Amino acid sequence: MKPKSKLILIRLVWLVLAFSATAARAQDALPSWNDGVAKKAIVEFVEATTTQGSPQFVPPAERIAAFDQDGTLWVEHPMYTQVTYCLDRVPAVVKANPEWAKVDPFKAVLSGNREAMAKLTMNDLFKILAATLTGMPVDEFKAEVKKWLGTAKDPRWKRPYTELTYLPMQEVLKYLRANGYKTYIVTGGGQDFVRVYSEQTYGIPPEQVVGTAGGTKYGYDKSGTPFLTKEPKLLLNDNDAGKPEGIHLMIGRRPHAAFGNSTGDRQMLEYTKAGDGARLSMLVLHDDAKREYAYGPARGLPDTRVGTFTQALYEQAKQQGWTVVSMQNDWKRVFAFEP
Amino acid sequence: MKPKSKLILIRLVWLVLAFSATAARAQDALPSWNDGVAKKAIVEFVEATTTQGSPQFVPPAERIAAFDQDGTLWVEHPMYTQVTYCLDRVPAVVKANPEWAKVDPFKAVLSGNREAMAKLTMNDLFKILAATLTGMPVDEFKAEVKKWLGTAKDPRWKRPYTELTYLPMQEVLKYLRANGYKTYIVTGGGQDFVRVYSEQTYGIPPEQVVGTAGGTKYGYDKSGTPFLTKEPKLLLNDNDAGKPEGIHLMIGRRPHAAFGNSTGDRQMLEYTKAGDGARLSMLVLHDDAKREYAYGPARGLPDTRVGTFTQALYEQAKQQGWTVVSMQNDWKRVFAFEP
Repeated sequence: MKPKSKLILIRLVWLVLAFSATAARAQDALPSWNDGVAKKAIVEFVEATTTQGSPQFVPPAERIAAFDQDGTLWVEHPMYTQVTYCLDRVPAVVKANPEWAKVDPFKAVLSGNREAMAKLTMNDLFKILAATLTGMPVDEFKAEVKKWLGTAKDPRWKRPYTELTYLPMQEVLKYLRANGYKTYIVTGGGQDFVRVYSEQTYGIPPEQVVGTAGGTKYGYDKSGTPFLTKEPKLLLNDNDAGKPEGIHLMIGRRPHAAFGNSTGDRQMLEYTKAGDGARLSMLVLHDDAKREYAYGPARGLPDTRVGTFTQALYEQAKQQGWTVVSMQNDWKRVFAFEP
Repeated sequence: MKPKSKLILIRLVWLVLAFSATAARAQDALPSWNDGVAKKAIVEFVEATTTQGSPQFVPPAERIAAFDQDGTLWVEHPMYTQVTYCLDRVPAVVKANPEWAKVDPFKAVLSGNREAMAKLTMNDLFKILAATLTGMPVDEFKAEVKKWLGTAKDPRWKRPYTELTYLPMQEVLKYLRANGYKTYIVTGGGQDFVRVYSEQTYGIPPEQVVGTAGGTKYGYDKSGTPFLTKEPKLLLNDNDAGKPEGIHLMIGRRPHAAFGNSTGDRQMLEYTKAGDGARLSMLVLHDDAKREYAYGPARGLPDTRVGTFTQALYEQAKQQGWTVVSMQNDWKRVFAFEP
């Protein structure tokens, strides 16, 4: 490029950047949030870390934000979406392995008995997962999940699961990205599962999804074409301490902001908050039985199988300066499909 | 933003993008490459995958390019830089554990006897690595590597190791990025090690470095501050089949272009090439004893401890349509510090 062309180009880029930055700040990037402590904390964090000359300014390359998924970005109640997917697969799997029909946990699932299914432990679910996925080519898994997501519907809202994302959190994702943050999902859910829809659903590309991950095995088909299959080996259990460990493995930097909703996010939130400069750690409290669900058991909400938000977690949040988001009070709207 | 402002902004962005694309194509993005099959292959690949309307057009989000490091992006001879780092650490480690002074492989290293050191196996080196790094806080490791890189020098060129990168490959990295490719390092070297300097040296951020990775452990110091320490557990051996497996784990998409130089890159190169549409797999052949090194043993070059480029690999490259880069013939310049 000639020096003069280069100069014009630089000026144009500068103009666009300056214009975008001003525009992004001038308008309300979080229209689905009520004014309050939570919304204020997000806006102040973004302004402190992205305003040139701010003592807490963070260079663009270091702007990392991590989001738990189930219960933080989308509905996790009454069952994690991925668990529903696994249960839906059981009939086909048992058809291929008829001897499993009489053995738990498969028997319990096939019975269709909600009560028996509700008693399944995480270990049972892992058994189902391993049994139904081991040896599957990763591309086949991807295609199957995509197909399932296209037809399966949440029983309460009668909508595809990918529509059950929280509008206020979608706004936070966009607001952070508009301000130079790289947004990551850091989920206890399966990394390969979430990656199938993360780009379309959240604008987060597969390479920015950190999740519970199993091994794969490289091999060749009959014609010599290489492909990868899923292995039962667990490489990363991306829950609890596994979240900061997974962040180190997959990202290699401590996030400046982290969002979660349960004890499984505790270590990620405290690790994030323990960094220097401005750090934002947020906890979503499901206290809205009318528009979504209310469970906890912080503040006397019922304890359930998913998203354990204990009183101890609530106390730690207060002590360490995390921000608690009350779904009922802080969110003007919950879903994009509802007014 | 008001609709009118938005329109102006869109027009400006469009203008900048259109201008950049034209400018990037008008000039020679690879001035350190001689005209030839290799350079042509790179340019044709980029044009085929990034020109709107091309039958082989790849959407920007899917543009992933993977680069081996040692021997592909920088000098690996006579010893991998990371091995030199480990050996340099031995005296301090033995000082802290005096009983190791009489035990191999530490004894061999301390002797300074080049011949004894040359006989160390990969297993010996792994033993040194594990012994010197286990229990170290990840932030301390990062700081130490940074310090070492600031003082250590390559014995032949008397320059910091981070200056021994190949200028033609730096041009390929920039050329691909200018055309919307996300560039990754996929190295058999230690992920945490390479991440320390990847951004400054290659413009590749830590989260785009996939390498051999060990586990970490989350814990707290006396004041209750959380931190991560390095564990001896191997999570990913990012060599051979481990490269496509690591790509799946860390990126989740098959690259459209891959660059390597040894049998350790074989699976990554064939996996990349086996994808549909235009795919570029390249092998750097070290056949330039004068400006760098000549080793192989393809085409009768001497076999050495590093970068095994066998005749079989050479045959596979020809058969599967990978491009072989002859350092001697294809590269006009090798290093930025040499004319």
